[in-house]
Amino acid sequence: MEKIKIDLSNLSNIFPNEFTAAQKAKAQTLFLKKLSEQAHRFYGGKMQTVPKAGVYGFNWFNVWYTPGVSQVSTILRDEPLEAYNLSNKGNLVAVVSDSTRVLGDGDCGKFGGLGVMEGKAFLMKYLGGVDAVALCINNRDKNGVPNPDKVIDFVKMLEPSFGAVNLEDISQPNCYKILDELRSDCDIPVWHDDAQGTASVTLAGLINALKLADKKIEEVKTVLMGAGAANSTIAKILMTAGMPGENMIIFDSKGSLSTDRTEFAADPFAYRHWELCQKTNPHKINNIEVAMKGADVLIAVSKPGPDTVKPEWIKLMNSKAIVFTCANPIPEIYPYAAKEAGAFIVATGRGDFPNQVNNSLGFPGILKGALTVQATKITDNMAIAAAYSLANYAEKRGINPDNIIPTMDEAQVFPQEAADVAMQAVKDGVATRILTHDQVFQIAQTDIKQARETMQLLMDKEMIKQPPLKMLEDVLTWTVNQFK
Amino acid sequence: MEKIKIDLSNLSNIFPNEFTAAQKAKAQTLFLKKLSEQAHRFYGGKMQTVPKAGVYGFNWFNVWYTPGVSQVSTILRDEPLEAYNLSNKGNLVAVVSDSTRVLGDGDCGKFGGLGVMEGKAFLMKYLGGVDAVALCINNRDKNGVPNPDKVIDFVKMLEPSFGAVNLEDISQPNCYKILDELRSDCDIPVWHDDAQGTASVTLAGLINALKLADKKIEEVKTVLMGAGAANSTIAKILMTAGMPGENMIIFDSKGSLSTDRTEFAADPFAYRHWELCQKTNPHKINNIEVAMKGADVLIAVSKPGPDTVKPEWIKLMNSKAIVFTCANPIPEIYPYAAKEAGAFIVATGRGDFPNQVNNSLGFPGILKGALTVQATKITDNMAIAAAYSLANYAEKRGINPDNIIPTMDEAQVFPQEAADVAMQAVKDGVATRILTHDQVFQIAQTDIKQARETMQLLMDKEMIKQPPLKMLEDVLTWTVNQFK
Repeated sequence: MEKIKIDLSNLSNIFPNEFTAAQKAKAQTLFLKKLSEQAHRFYGGKMQTVPKAGVYGFNWFNVWYTPGVSQVSTILRDEPLEAYNLSNKGNLVAVVSDSTRVLGDGDCGKFGGLGVMEGKAFLMKYLGGVDAVALCINNRDKNGVPNPDKVIDFVKMLEPSFGAVNLEDISQPNCYKILDELRSDCDIPVWHDDAQGTASVTLAGLINALKLADKKIEEVKTVLMGAGAANSTIAKILMTAGMPGENMIIFDSKGSLSTDRTEFAADPFAYRHWELCQKTNPHKINNIEVAMKGADVLIAVSKPGPDTVKPEWIKLMNSKAIVFTCANPIPEIYPYAAKEAGAFIVATGRGDFPNQVNNSLGFPGILKGALTVQATKITDNMAIAAAYSLANYAEKRGINPDNIIPTMDEAQVFPQEAADVAMQAVKDGVATRILTHDQVFQIAQTDIKQARETMQLLMDKEMIKQPPLKMLEDVLTWTVNQFK
Repeated sequence: MEKIKIDLSNLSNIFPNEFTAAQKAKAQTLFLKKLSEQAHRFYGGKMQTVPKAGVYGFNWFNVWYTPGVSQVSTILRDEPLEAYNLSNKGNLVAVVSDSTRVLGDGDCGKFGGLGVMEGKAFLMKYLGGVDAVALCINNRDKNGVPNPDKVIDFVKMLEPSFGAVNLEDISQPNCYKILDELRSDCDIPVWHDDAQGTASVTLAGLINALKLADKKIEEVKTVLMGAGAANSTIAKILMTAGMPGENMIIFDSKGSLSTDRTEFAADPFAYRHWELCQKTNPHKINNIEVAMKGADVLIAVSKPGPDTVKPEWIKLMNSKAIVFTCANPIPEIYPYAAKEAGAFIVATGRGDFPNQVNNSLGFPGILKGALTVQATKITDNMAIAAAYSLANYAEKRGINPDNIIPTMDEAQVFPQEAADVAMQAVKDGVATRILTHDQVFQIAQTDIKQARETMQLLMDKEMIKQPPLKMLEDVLTWTVNQFK
């Protein structure tokens, strides 16, 4: 049992030695949650706005504001697209949520997503050099029922001020309608990170896992557990990337998807699911044990664990089994348990375990790429390009079963991803500013470096104050006491 | 003719000596407008988002994001008002505009207000220590007609994420309906800066101008030119502050307001104007020269000049005439011309002339005060408290006819104003967090200091780069050439 460090680098050694692996995993989650509350309280939120233009004397306010700014107003009136050059629009993303499905915690009411969305804005800046604003919106009627049309109206009104919109944590089926309508009606990219983002990063991890297991995407048998926005988009992207639908079986809370699920055919909002019913599971296998027997890949994005996926199911899988259990905040099965049951590679959504298949690897680079070439859309091809970019980056610097995918601290991965995505945007005809791979790479790299250096500077100069170590120690004591 | 300096401190001496006062005034405006375009292009906008919470190792992302943040989500679900402690809500303002009446330039289309709103966000942070997001929204129908109900819907949806809303540059009569409905329906303050903000700062200037002219607010005869959102609110606030309505005559583009203007009685959106028709101008004077004869005060917030107010009118005024000509970007008459015509005190909206009666002195402190005590409204009394705070501050450090009001670079005025406004909020029963004057002062002072130091640090370390002096020189050359 080590003394806790302010950099949290020794998380796995701070709990009593007598704790079992299960207790340590549970304690780590408890500790991080409690610390999160304390740390958020310490700072009063996570994001601020800061000028990025200089003031070299008070007369500069006559440049940035009246009377000088009048010139900017009339230019924007006459040539609206100058907004990309004269305002922050070109590097600004709105992170919009109605908080109806907040990261593993379900409907959290109209304020509930603020912590997550500010976190998203944090990552957007730190990893992608992109400015972002957290917007948790109230789209509920008198009875508290969320109305998807209000989100659509809201985002359409927002459009002039932002270069892209990142939809987040909106429950299904509303999220499909919202995304489809906004993607078709907006002139800026509208990205649903829980769907396309997760699918892109999952595909990245799977590409390298298959390399290590020496298996082919065209041949593996795959079980998907959960048919929410994430997994239904993952299924679609996997098929586009070469996995035959007949090798896939998808389970939701009512059983497997197949043409027996006629309720989807009848529901106009469920066209995505009905498509999956028709393309997958031709033998209509509806028993999880039967489905898992001989499966090569399990991709679970379903209910928080740790008992959602049973070790016995993993024991039924083929050799060199690949297990992605990505529920937040607690994976469907803890990695140690999945490994004990015979899994060859285990990935989760958590950064405190190996192989974090987390969309943080995707959206900062993908949106930076889309913004840099002023893309009007983010196509599925761009999401797949991001997946190959991530997988190739990791392969080049070396992969192994506990390291299949880049981690967030590999800063170089993001400008590479941005450039690869931007080139796909150019290919797909959705870029309005045509740049070379190297140009995008340089812009992204400069902006990311600037974002990190700005923050480091604020920390070094104590404009961002370090939380007292005692806060961490007290939370640790509290955590250990929960097990007494 | 001096060499231009990077701090723009010698603006009045950079033009050729042979330029007349009129040419210099015109050249200065042209120069600032052209430089504004170049400088905006240099930086690509004015605002960025930056984390305000530290990352002392990558495991901190497990605190700021998943899995730790889950604790914040569930707390916010169960106790929504914890948003003030766990998110940035408590110090975050949305600057919302439909760009239908952008600072002197009228309707600038859906992108047109971006420069002004980012400027507002800039001032909010630099002067008030308040984070702010510029939101230019598209509320127009297929024919381009702006719909006030869409602004109302938009702001109501925004409400969970912000501590206050600053409405800006929305044309009348829509602005009245929007403000009235939002003030009554929202649980956070909704402030219309063009109306309440301008009124508050104008009153501040007038209080001190009257002291210098040795006149009393209860006795002076006042002409108001323009009956837009600003001047109609100024009239209302002046009456609340002690000026009898019968001593006021208000002109709009169709003549003077009086009970002869029955079109206002018939229009349900014009109730504010009808009230002013009933309370002012009992003798129904409808000729500007007659009205100006013997007037002590002129307050013009009407059409950009420089010929909107004629020198002959000012010659008709009483001795020690007080002239506020606040149109943007060019005052209704240039200060030198008003002085030549005999004005004792001249104020404008411009920072490059003496006596800037500009709402930049108001909103940063007023909103900081309202946010700090988590006010649910900003009452007219709070706006008047801000006016007395500004006036008293200036009087204490000394006033004269060219210096009736604090300038933006007097950093100490803002925490004082915030504290005075907050105390009025407590008195008026709209504060939900009860603090003392000194507590609010300390919080505001700390946050403003931090905002300025953060920016200075970024400039010192060249994270914010200085524009080349050549940019200024080239713009100056261009400006001088316009007169050849």
